[in-house]
Amino acid sequence: MTGVQVAGRSAVQAGTPGGLLLGVDFGGTKMAVGVADGQGRLLAHERVPTHAERGAPQALERALTLAAELVAAHGGRLAAAGIASPGVVRPDGIDLAPNVPGWERLRLADAVRERLGVGTVAVDNDLNAAALAELRLGALRDADPGLVVGIGTGVAAAVTVGGRVVAGHRGAAGEIGYAVTGAHWPGTMLELEFSGRALDRLAAELGVPGGAAGLADRAGDPGRFRDVLLARVDELARHLVTCCLLLDPQRVVLVGGVAGSDLIRGLLADRLAEVLPHRPELVLSAFPDQAALLGAVTLAREAALV
Amino acid sequence: MTGVQVAGRSAVQAGTPGGLLLGVDFGGTKMAVGVADGQGRLLAHERVPTHAERGAPQALERALTLAAELVAAHGGRLAAAGIASPGVVRPDGIDLAPNVPGWERLRLADAVRERLGVGTVAVDNDLNAAALAELRLGALRDADPGLVVGIGTGVAAAVTVGGRVVAGHRGAAGEIGYAVTGAHWPGTMLELEFSGRALDRLAAELGVPGGAAGLADRAGDPGRFRDVLLARVDELARHLVTCCLLLDPQRVVLVGGVAGSDLIRGLLADRLAEVLPHRPELVLSAFPDQAALLGAVTLAREAALV
Repeated sequence: MTGVQVAGRSAVQAGTPGGLLLGVDFGGTKMAVGVADGQGRLLAHERVPTHAERGAPQALERALTLAAELVAAHGGRLAAAGIASPGVVRPDGIDLAPNVPGWERLRLADAVRERLGVGTVAVDNDLNAAALAELRLGALRDADPGLVVGIGTGVAAAVTVGGRVVAGHRGAAGEIGYAVTGAHWPGTMLELEFSGRALDRLAAELGVPGGAAGLADRAGDPGRFRDVLLARVDELARHLVTCCLLLDPQRVVLVGGVAGSDLIRGLLADRLAEVLPHRPELVLSAFPDQAALLGAVTLAREAALV
Repeated sequence: MTGVQVAGRSAVQAGTPGGLLLGVDFGGTKMAVGVADGQGRLLAHERVPTHAERGAPQALERALTLAAELVAAHGGRLAAAGIASPGVVRPDGIDLAPNVPGWERLRLADAVRERLGVGTVAVDNDLNAAALAELRLGALRDADPGLVVGIGTGVAAAVTVGGRVVAGHRGAAGEIGYAVTGAHWPGTMLELEFSGRALDRLAAELGVPGGAAGLADRAGDPGRFRDVLLARVDELARHLVTCCLLLDPQRVVLVGGVAGSDLIRGLLADRLAEVLPHRPELVLSAFPDQAALLGAVTLAREAALV
C-alpha cells in the first residue's frame, strides 16, 4: 500500500535527492548558474554575460567552468543537473535559437555530463523551465491554465494545463517570437518588433541612451517616446490577446528583463483589458530574473527523483 | 482488482448506457438534432435553419419539438442528452454568442430536461464538442496536442492536450473570434473579418451571388476576387500562426461550412507553411458539418457513463 500512496502523491513533494542540484540558465544576454540543496533551495548562484556575438562554444565553456567552481565550493557531490536554454532543445542540438550563433550545434546535456561527471542531466526550453518553476514554487501554483510570457533578449511563452507544462508535438510550444506582425502578409516577426533586443535597437534609433530600459524611462510621460513604445507594445498585445482567447488562462505571468518595467507591464495590461471579454490576472513573476534558473534546478530535482 | 483495471481504462470504451442518446447542436445558421444508440452510433439526424434573426426562443422550441419527434420515433427511452452551443455555456445562460439574439438568457439544459424528461443533460461549447468528437472518433485520436478551428457562421477554436479538451479558466478557451485585427489598435474583431457571416457580407459588397461559397467559387482563378479573399484569409492565418506557435499542435482540424472550401483551406495551408518553423498537419474534419452534433452525442454518452 505504501507504494500506491507514494504514486498518488507528487514526486516533487515526496522525496529529497542526496547531493547537490545544479541549474544552468543559458540566455541570449546572460547566463545564470546556481547550486541548490536536495530540496531545490539555492545555496549560491552567479550570473555572467553570454557575449553571444563571440559564439556559443566560449559561452558554454565559461558556464561550465563557473558551474564546476560552484559545485566544488559546496562539497562537490552532484545528484543531478538541469539546463534551460532558448529554443527547442534536442540531444544533438538546439533549434529556433537565433540569438546565439552556433547554439544549434551544441550538445548541452553531453557537455554538462562530461565536464561535471553527473549522470542525470535534464534539459528543457528556458520558458518551459520558468513555467515549471512558476507551477511548483511561484505564481502558477494555484492557477490553471497558466500562460508564462518571457520578454528578455527575445520573446517567448509557455503554457501550463492541469499542472504540467505543455511541450508541444515537437517540443516547440510557446515560440511566439515567430508570430506574424505588420499590416501586410507576412510582415515581420514579433521578436523583431518587441523583445529586449528589438527595444534596444529602437532606443538606439531614437538616440535614447540605456537601451530598452532607458526607453521605458523616457516613455514614462506622454509624448513621442511613449507613442513609439506603445506602438511596439501593441504588436505584442495583439498576439497575447489571441493566446489568452485560445487558452482562457487564469493567470498570465510575465518574466524576463523587459517584463520588469512597470510602464511596459501597465501598457500591456491596459491593452488586454480593452479587448478581452475575460481578463486573466496579469502578474510579474516572483523571480523575474531567476525563473528559468529555478526551473533548471527544478528540472534537476525532478529528474533525480524519477 | 477489477475495479482498478476499469479505473485505468477509458470509461468511454468500457461501457454502453441503456437507452438512446440525444445530441443537439445549436448553430448560428443551422441546428442539428440526432439520436444515437448507446454506443453513440447515429440512428437518425435532421438539420433545420436557426432563423437567428427571429430570436432564440423560437429556435429552441423548434429544436426541442424535432428532438421529441426523433426520440419518439426510435422507442422513446432516453439515457442522456448532450447539447452543443456557440459561446460559453453556463447553467443560467450563454456568454459570448452574439450571433443569436436572446441566446444569453437561455437555460438550455433545463429546457431539454423538462421537455424531454431526461435527467442527465451535458452541455458544452460547440467547438469543444467538435474537439471531443475528433478526439474520440476523428482526426485527433492519435494526435497531441490538437487544435480544432471552426469556420461556420462565426469563427472559434478548441484545444486538446493529453486526450482532453482544454476548457479554460472560465470555460472560454478557444474564443479566437474576438482576436484583434487591423493595422491600428484595437482595429476590429477577427470574426467580423473572417467567418461565414463576414464572407457572406463581403460577397454581397462585391456583388457576388451565393455568399461565402459563391465568393470562394469566383476566387478559384487569380484576379480581384482571389486577392480580396486572400486578404481576409491572411487575417485568420495571422492568428492561427500564433495559435500554432503557442501550442505546437501535431494536427490542426478544420470544421464548419466555410472550412469545406478546398480553395480557402488551400490558401490557409499555404500561409501557415510560409511562416511556421514547424508545420502541423492541416486536415479537414472527417465530419465537417457534423462534428459538433457527434460531439453532443459523445457528451451525452460520457455523461450517461459517469
